[in-house]
Amino acid sequence: EPAAGESGAAPRIVLGSNQYGKAEVRLVKVTRDTARHQLEDLSVTSQVHGDFEAAHTQGDNSHVVATDTQKNTIYAFARDGVGSPEEFLGRLAAHFTTGFDWVSGGRWAAEQYFWNRINDHDHAFAKDKSEIRTAVLLAADGRTHLVSGITGLTVLKTTGSEFHGFPRDRYTTLAETTDRILATDVTAKWRYADGADLSGLDFNAVYASVRNLLLDAFAATHSLALQQSMFEMGKAVLQAHPEIDEVRLSLPNNHHFLVDLAPFGVDNPNEVFFAADRPYGLIEAAVLREGTEPQSPVWNTIGGFC
Amino acid sequence: EPAAGESGAAPRIVLGSNQYGKAEVRLVKVTRDTARHQLEDLSVTSQVHGDFEAAHTQGDNSHVVATDTQKNTIYAFARDGVGSPEEFLGRLAAHFTTGFDWVSGGRWAAEQYFWNRINDHDHAFAKDKSEIRTAVLLAADGRTHLVSGITGLTVLKTTGSEFHGFPRDRYTTLAETTDRILATDVTAKWRYADGADLSGLDFNAVYASVRNLLLDAFAATHSLALQQSMFEMGKAVLQAHPEIDEVRLSLPNNHHFLVDLAPFGVDNPNEVFFAADRPYGLIEAAVLREGTEPQSPVWNTIGGFC
Amino acid sequence: EPAAGESGAAPRIVLGSNQYGKAEVRLVKVTRDTARHQLEDLSVTSQVHGDFEAAHTQGDNSHVVATDTQKNTIYAFARDGVGSPEEFLGRLAAHFTTGFDWVSGGRWAAEQYFWNRINDHDHAFAKDKSEIRTAVLLAADGRTHLVSGITGLTVLKTTGSEFHGFPRDRYTTLAETTDRILATDVTAKWRYADGADLSGLDFNAVYASVRNLLLDAFAATHSLALQQSMFEMGKAVLQAHPEIDEVRLSLPNNHHFLVDLAPFGVDNPNEVFFAADRPYGLIEAAVLREGTEPQSPVWNTIGGFC
Amino acid sequence: EPAAGESGAAPRIVLGSNQYGKAEVRLVKVTRDTARHQLEDLSVTSQVHGDFEAAHTQGDNSHVVATDTQKNTIYAFARDGVGSPEEFLGRLAAHFTTGFDWVSGGRWAAEQYFWNRINDHDHAFAKDKSEIRTAVLLAADGRTHLVSGITGLTVLKTTGSEFHGFPRDRYTTLAETTDRILATDVTAKWRYADGADLSGLDFNAVYASVRNLLLDAFAATHSLALQQSMFEMGKAVLQAHPEIDEVRLSLPNNHHFLVDLAPFGVDNPNEVFFAADRPYGLIEAAVLREGTEPQSPVWNTIGGFC
Repeated sequence: EPAAGESGAAPRIVLGSNQYGKAEVRLVKVTRDTARHQLEDLSVTSQVHGDFEAAHTQGDNSHVVATDTQKNTIYAFARDGVGSPEEFLGRLAAHFTTGFDWVSGGRWAAEQYFWNRINDHDHAFAKDKSEIRTAVLLAADGRTHLVSGITGLTVLKTTGSEFHGFPRDRYTTLAETTDRILATDVTAKWRYADGADLSGLDFNAVYASVRNLLLDAFAATHSLALQQSMFEMGKAVLQAHPEIDEVRLSLPNNHHFLVDLAPFGVDNPNEVFFAADRPYGLIEAAVLREGTEPQSPVWNTIGGFC
Repeated sequence: EPAAGESGAAPRIVLGSNQYGKAEVRLVKVTRDTARHQLEDLSVTSQVHGDFEAAHTQGDNSHVVATDTQKNTIYAFARDGVGSPEEFLGRLAAHFTTGFDWVSGGRWAAEQYFWNRINDHDHAFAKDKSEIRTAVLLAADGRTHLVSGITGLTVLKTTGSEFHGFPRDRYTTLAETTDRILATDVTAKWRYADGADLSGLDFNAVYASVRNLLLDAFAATHSLALQQSMFEMGKAVLQAHPEIDEVRLSLPNNHHFLVDLAPFGVDNPNEVFFAADRPYGLIEAAVLREGTEPQSPVWNTIGGFC
Repeated sequence: EPAAGESGAAPRIVLGSNQYGKAEVRLVKVTRDTARHQLEDLSVTSQVHGDFEAAHTQGDNSHVVATDTQKNTIYAFARDGVGSPEEFLGRLAAHFTTGFDWVSGGRWAAEQYFWNRINDHDHAFAKDKSEIRTAVLLAADGRTHLVSGITGLTVLKTTGSEFHGFPRDRYTTLAETTDRILATDVTAKWRYADGADLSGLDFNAVYASVRNLLLDAFAATHSLALQQSMFEMGKAVLQAHPEIDEVRLSLPNNHHFLVDLAPFGVDNPNEVFFAADRPYGLIEAAVLREGTEPQSPVWNTIGGFC
Repeated sequence: EPAAGESGAAPRIVLGSNQYGKAEVRLVKVTRDTARHQLEDLSVTSQVHGDFEAAHTQGDNSHVVATDTQKNTIYAFARDGVGSPEEFLGRLAAHFTTGFDWVSGGRWAAEQYFWNRINDHDHAFAKDKSEIRTAVLLAADGRTHLVSGITGLTVLKTTGSEFHGFPRDRYTTLAETTDRILATDVTAKWRYADGADLSGLDFNAVYASVRNLLLDAFAATHSLALQQSMFEMGKAVLQAHPEIDEVRLSLPNNHHFLVDLAPFGVDNPNEVFFAADRPYGLIEAAVLREGTEPQSPVWNTIGGFC
């Protein structure tokens, strides 16, 4: 007799891949060992994989580590410090995959938000909203796959960007240009080499380094296409960080259209622009070391990509 | 000589998978053949795959079908009607994959927004914001993979939901309950069978049917776990729609916490609730026909899943 | 000696108008007297006015009814039912202005969200996101001022809208049109007559009626300007509801631009449009009964208006 | 005969205050006189007041300066530079109130977004999203009323905040505390003295100064109530800036709740917090020089206040 789904000639309907947990646990950790406090601010998501079929097919929760329990665990673990999102997710993954026989893996993710001291004050901070740090850790088949990232980093060049030489078909009306504004919101995700020993890595330092490499490559590249800027950004990261095997970037082309002031008898030599909302270009790619596994399973859990 | 990236002992840095195009093209199509107008409202995204390496590594745009051209094509094609998001994406995919030698495939996606007539008026409408219809079409390796969906459909049961029998560990504090509010925002994506002949399918009718099946299954299932409700929702769709091979659901558990009124000398027999924002449970699964390919490549482009 | 602020020749710096409380208290009330449950879903804000100077100037909280207490009061009062946002705010206002000597008034506000039964189910609902009901009650100087409203109601006419005859100056490039799409997101606020006896009024019925009057007037008006449609909408409400003295409307003109398909050899007889995000027109006015007080103090607390 | 509205015994229905224009004109201005480019990024709203009754009651647009024309004017004026939001709005106000006989005034508003150079690069910038600068200029009755502001500035103290001594009634459950996190999103608006000569004022310098004064006062104040911090913030601005007569602040109390780790056998000496979304406290006040007009008409157009 089928345990789940339909009997008879038709194929049974069965449970496929599944995961569950608690999302966006807002965690603020203050370290106050000295009068000069430290502040860590994260949103943490925990989802486990394993044998949860009975919950789906029969409402049997005997395997269901409650999402509330996952939330509690996040807060309890934070008492010992966060350190970095990557390390913190690693501790969660180790706990859940070793603590319950039927939990085979999971997906843990975090966003980190930054704060700067107000005039070097010991315990007063102002939030830096200009970027968000991200991390995703997938534990599957006895292995862990780690992707760190940055998102929401908006950059713009007022010159040093061209776009021409593209094919023209029946539907092409775009004019070529040798000087345009190039603007984008950087979302970058870098995958650490599978099997690499990351135990001694200073993830916070890597983050700071990658962030600067991305910014510098964007600024320094005289761009003939946003694709070119994107590739240079990914390449700069891989050249400097042997522990990273792949960088995926998703870059909207935030169009800034030159306003036609001629009807008003006014020229406009690339000075006055309309910043459009939608539609926008969307340019995405993976940049990786030759020979590395191009389709790590962690990407399937992130998506939005090719 | 390496075409792209680094020479020397270290592995070259190369371009991996990539896609680009125009995102969120806001298209409103009025059909006014008669005095009783029809209204279609979509946000369409077009991204192409193929040989775009030179653009990335050298800024050579000779293969780069401009994102502006992709936008123009969307609007030009809409002149002949939309019909359904699925059919419209199919027309775009056929155009781009046959019109340019170096375009091997792509990813086309749409959101559709609904409008109802104001008191049966011929040309006045009010927007129905209660749900968004989605579609994603992936063309890769000479095949197309089609996923339709719904998102933002928020549902709630005031009773008929229990949660108990879950394991209790050191970090478990949640009380068991035999009567709770169950609320979620339904995101469902259904994958049409690869290779099925969909040419005669009425996608609009399928959407209406799936939507109702999801709602009915949510309402009818006496829920012992959100996982159980989710599985029943997916199963109902597959039972009624042989052309669909898989349903993926992503269901936040929108917690409604009973407010403790005892300090005020007031009872609260499941009447007054605090609707929390974050954190929330997040329950996700694939429900599929046994024997179907469980990891269609289209899922990798959607993500957020296991 | 100055109680607050600076001494000396310069004018003292003093506390002006002030208010404080708890905002966006998410309240879900289930009425389960019978098996056919009722559901009310609100976001309630409570702010009090009065003598709170010592809290501001000296950190003396002896007058500060804690915002947490205001939240608790909202939940406790909900145990006896909500009924309508307007009545519920009235109960809160009466409580706070009579319960504390130093509380002279306040501002209470609510949003209400709607749910429809799923196929007439007794306890399963789907959220209707197409509009939000609002209410603001100001208690000041021993009087109450009540404004009800609707927001987020998006409407569109595919024809029956013209715009021409406007003045042309150096900066005018807009073409005249006798047939355009007219679309807006209706935010309307109606002020009940000061001093009117509202004790027997069915506010839920008024809301339903006003909503329909606004929709019908928008649909029925052949529009030569969005201003004209707006005035007709307000007038329709006032004609039908003698208990209402004033309607204020804030209507964005959600531009839908006809796409120029001529470069592709395709005509476009008002069929294919680009729905723009920003900028948008913004048309606002008060429609009121002659002789009524045009500047009720409640409007100062709502703002965004002239 | 009534010009507008209803005849008969009932009061006529008439047009009250009204305004219209173009909202959120996204303007990016590049100044490229030298290789070291300057970047200004704003969202500008223009709304005019005056004799527009015929448009409302008859659809007669002969007075309606098109919102598209207002948009064009904004872009044309930007060709000569922006300088500061306040100056730019002043130029718009002067143009519209002098250029059309029937325009008696209006409301002009702007948001400004900040960008920092990437590593001191001449033409590459990264957006600073940590705050938004605002300005509102009201021209009415032959006078102008100017309010500058900041919004979205999120600040937090990890200690140095107490809350106790508040009254306890039937609905009070909140515990007193002598050490809590204090966090808020600063929205401040400062009103320049009516009639002051602002022609030589460096508004950019004032903005920088006010911003620092607000931050320093928040950091330096040992807080017994958010009201106290708020008052000190406003007072610091007025003490340093004689040209400013009033500061209004709207400060949410972004609650950070200490997580109870005791069930897990773990202490929590103010180290691990849950950052809540809703509800939140909302604390608002005007701080002003004694003797100044407490209710400038410009506040009515901003609202959200008492």
